[in-house]
Amino acid sequence: MPLLARMLARSLVEIIAAKRDGASNSPDEIGRLISALSTGELADYQMAAWLMAVFFRGLDHAETFALTDAMLRSGRVIHLESVAGIKVDKHSTGGVGDKVSIALAPLVAACGVPVPMVSGRGLGHTGGTLDKLEAIPGFRTQLGVDDFARIVRDVGCCMIGQTAEIAPADNRIYGLRDVTATVESIPLIVASILSKKLAEGIDALVLDVKVGRGAFMKDGATARALAELLVRVGTRAGKRVVALLTDMRAPLGVAVGNAVETREALDVLAGEGPADVVECTLRLGEEMLVLGGVAGSQSEARAKLVAAIASGRGSRVAERMIDAQGGDARVVADRSRLEIGSEEIVVESPRDGYVLRADALEIGLAAVALGAGRSRADQSVDHVVGILVEKKPGARVTRGEPLARLVLRRRSGAEAIVERVRGAFAVGDEAPPPGPLVLDRMVAANSTSTP
Amino acid sequence: MPLLARMLARSLVEIIAAKRDGASNSPDEIGRLISALSTGELADYQMAAWLMAVFFRGLDHAETFALTDAMLRSGRVIHLESVAGIKVDKHSTGGVGDKVSIALAPLVAACGVPVPMVSGRGLGHTGGTLDKLEAIPGFRTQLGVDDFARIVRDVGCCMIGQTAEIAPADNRIYGLRDVTATVESIPLIVASILSKKLAEGIDALVLDVKVGRGAFMKDGATARALAELLVRVGTRAGKRVVALLTDMRAPLGVAVGNAVETREALDVLAGEGPADVVECTLRLGEEMLVLGGVAGSQSEARAKLVAAIASGRGSRVAERMIDAQGGDARVVADRSRLEIGSEEIVVESPRDGYVLRADALEIGLAAVALGAGRSRADQSVDHVVGILVEKKPGARVTRGEPLARLVLRRRSGAEAIVERVRGAFAVGDEAPPPGPLVLDRMVAANSTSTP
Repeated sequence: MPLLARMLARSLVEIIAAKRDGASNSPDEIGRLISALSTGELADYQMAAWLMAVFFRGLDHAETFALTDAMLRSGRVIHLESVAGIKVDKHSTGGVGDKVSIALAPLVAACGVPVPMVSGRGLGHTGGTLDKLEAIPGFRTQLGVDDFARIVRDVGCCMIGQTAEIAPADNRIYGLRDVTATVESIPLIVASILSKKLAEGIDALVLDVKVGRGAFMKDGATARALAELLVRVGTRAGKRVVALLTDMRAPLGVAVGNAVETREALDVLAGEGPADVVECTLRLGEEMLVLGGVAGSQSEARAKLVAAIASGRGSRVAERMIDAQGGDARVVADRSRLEIGSEEIVVESPRDGYVLRADALEIGLAAVALGAGRSRADQSVDHVVGILVEKKPGARVTRGEPLARLVLRRRSGAEAIVERVRGAFAVGDEAPPPGPLVLDRMVAANSTSTP
Repeated sequence: MPLLARMLARSLVEIIAAKRDGASNSPDEIGRLISALSTGELADYQMAAWLMAVFFRGLDHAETFALTDAMLRSGRVIHLESVAGIKVDKHSTGGVGDKVSIALAPLVAACGVPVPMVSGRGLGHTGGTLDKLEAIPGFRTQLGVDDFARIVRDVGCCMIGQTAEIAPADNRIYGLRDVTATVESIPLIVASILSKKLAEGIDALVLDVKVGRGAFMKDGATARALAELLVRVGTRAGKRVVALLTDMRAPLGVAVGNAVETREALDVLAGEGPADVVECTLRLGEEMLVLGGVAGSQSEARAKLVAAIASGRGSRVAERMIDAQGGDARVVADRSRLEIGSEEIVVESPRDGYVLRADALEIGLAAVALGAGRSRADQSVDHVVGILVEKKPGARVTRGEPLARLVLRRRSGAEAIVERVRGAFAVGDEAPPPGPLVLDRMVAANSTSTP
């Protein structure tokens, strides 16, 4: 080993030791860690040790920004100067039944704000937008950066998966975190999310931080800390950022699965769809339109979004996007073209009363067990299966009435899953107090306002 | 990936997460981590994350024992049933000028206690017995297990380096710790030391835990904690274990280097040698003879050791061992056969007074800079160079009198090292209070007695 490399290698261990001992790593040191990971000077096991030290010691704002920036620069940063207007994306931290992006992106684009969206796949109990989109026959989510930019310019929105070109260091580090028990670290989550999002060529970002049993963040304080850091670091990176904290105790909407969720999102574009999905879509859309500069207030933004639904302009953009990405755009007008399991098992209410609980985590895990999701990244999903949550918390229900329906290819062998779905519900005498969908809203300069 | 392997892989991550969250890992879980590391099911980066979690959360006694046992079982355990008597080894945690093993092993063997000794190399400011032994022309430290057992049986002692067969998991984990800033963890140090020592086929073990500037453990409390855990875990493994805490603020003896230290150890066998080296050798030897069952008390043991020196029996065993290991045994009777640098630079006292300090760490690092040691495991050492500490703390000194001598191949280019050695000394008006060589003694059942 040449002398210079030897000196460098020693310094890398010292960087790990400094973090271990509670000191800050300088931006330069963090940049060196990430570039050394890319070149192979820093081994995966050294990065794993650093990640575990970060789990215990945390990262301050400057370190989190430096990590985000270094991971962002590990790959290609997409430039969308050829697309006019303020480019705005939305990112959700993941939940059960969260199909909002599929309606939101075309709707916001229809209102004049370009939406370049790089989405993820489902993992564990949470679903992923890419899996849902691929329920549309022919739809391709693996496009190159040039096709992505062209479709955003021509259609107004495009929804693809992360490419190997975008933030490869994040991809590598995420893979390590997944198998080294270092996923649950707020600064690491922030750097992972933002490094990918900042590489998309966006000007502004709306974050939907889910909180509750079906979310990654189970409690409000953790979710709030995550949202705050996302806004802070995103703002420091020169982007306009807003975060909403939204309820994820019960699944969002009725459908949980892939084709069933895509159908429900297209329902929203058609002016239909469950109230909570519509509301979530509109609230996030309001923020995007204001950040995108096409509306001066949230109420003005809402009016534009509602008009885009009523006129069918949102659906038309969805059709053009699906067509541009190789999919069968006829699904927008005719949702029956989506293949959905032909068998059904009904979970009935055991008594009269009010639904107290429809546990998103349990329902999400039941959907994974049906085949709609994956417990490891290398598994494939079955697009046609799913769960329809017929009764949400607060709903009046009579004995024998359906609480949920399992949608399947065949009825046999699903007994344990049916029981899991049954156990996700609680029915009692009194209606639970209604809770707001949006729990908090966070904007830059650390200011917090209730919605 | 087959289902069973997938389930297993998930459990391994859960084991890491449990340690991360402060829970104990069961002996079975720790055994699975180590065997999965050997088979490749657990990747190095996963082990690195677990090691960093252990750095923060620690291991309890049961976990430390389980780790020691699993690492021990990762390789071959030497059986020395063919060697009569209670086999006893000594292990030092490392210091500057610590050449004790080279005199001690033949001396104890000469008193009838077989000593199977697997030693290490110098790293950082601390020297290593193997490097010192290799200053003897022809001496081979890389012997196979069968040769090792034969020489212990025929000669009474043998001193070799760790082979690939002994505790390979420790070797792999130590390599990871070195580059992931997870070296300084007491339970990990204990498991590393004991897994190798327990694989040697010993019945009893005397530990020399060095404390002070020149030691790995700089303060008494940490050294005491290490000694206590070593005794506890070693005893749990069914061995008779005693630990001495010994002073390592100044180098042990006069010589620091390789050939110069071997010469000094052979001086001890010849009834010469500096008082502190002789005393350290005798104190450790007493413990070994008592554990080995050839002496009923420390005073009886001391009398035997002194007699073995006076009669030359210790030197005769050393000659037979050196011969059996391929070395030139004539060095025992004629130490001038050891090649030692012909040039010398004297560091003089700047004033009259008493030596207050001869800093072992600084002198150790100066010796590394001369080439006597290594800062990375892949470097080679120069056997002929070294430093002679002419005046130890407490010594009366006059202005211009030598404090130390650098022994070199050539005088040029050593200016910075000379200054480093000069800076290691402090001379003042009053003699510092003399401190004991042995600071504490620890035996099983958590009992502690002052020496």
